[in-house]
Amino acid sequence: MAYDNNNVFARILRGELPCVRLYENADTLAFLDIMPQSVGHTLVLPKAPAEFITDMSDASLAATILSTRKLANAVQQATGAEGLLISQFNGAVAGQTVPHVHFHIIPRYPDVPLRAHGRDKADPAELAALAEKIIAALANPV
Amino acid sequence: MAYDNNNVFARILRGELPCVRLYENADTLAFLDIMPQSVGHTLVLPKAPAEFITDMSDASLAATILSTRKLANAVQQATGAEGLLISQFNGAVAGQTVPHVHFHIIPRYPDVPLRAHGRDKADPAELAALAEKIIAALANPV
Repeated sequence: MAYDNNNVFARILRGELPCVRLYENADTLAFLDIMPQSVGHTLVLPKAPAEFITDMSDASLAATILSTRKLANAVQQATGAEGLLISQFNGAVAGQTVPHVHFHIIPRYPDVPLRAHGRDKADPAELAALAEKIIAALANPV
Repeated sequence: MAYDNNNVFARILRGELPCVRLYENADTLAFLDIMPQSVGHTLVLPKAPAEFITDMSDASLAATILSTRKLANAVQQATGAEGLLISQFNGAVAGQTVPHVHFHIIPRYPDVPLRAHGRDKADPAELAALAEKIIAALANPV
């Protein structure tokens, strides 16, 4: 299937829709999931258009996983999460809801079950406060 | 926590334990999960010792995701899976059961729920036949 230029992440990448931005470099963009499965749920995506991981160039894929790891460090530092789940869905049957490749970073906390994927919107003020902490952690990694 | 040199994947990497091998290069090794969550469940790991993604060097991480994508293509070709879930767990709280970084490639099929993580062993003859198909797909990507 051809890449859909009007998917919500393509529109965020073009600046047509807002996001709670955490990090950006030449090849990738990271922002908070507005319907988080846990506190600190972050999305990392390549700027190059691709629906599935199997559509990405080597350079875009390497850049995206390196940004994912950078964010994983910062999210864990900012949230104090005990563990991190990193996942990437290819195809609706696998749980993909937006047809632009993205990696999920989902912090895990003891005795806190994950919320359902993409169900409840988080409070914008809470997301903004969390973003500030993650951006501070990116600037001052331990 | 220091890396445990006697974890099961370290022992597989040293050749002390067997695996249903699919692919190997200088930096990575891929084999079938013997307790698959779906048909074709594959594991890709770096050879360099690391417990969590946050412990990996940039080079090891880039090599591991590129091998993961190579295997994702071949697994999808060999199994005909409609979608692929790629996941990587950091910490027991996030579902990590072996303390050496690994990426899961879990094929998804319509109307087939995932089996529980690490519960039932697959039939060795079925794994061997599947490995042959995946290795053939690696040699002849479409």
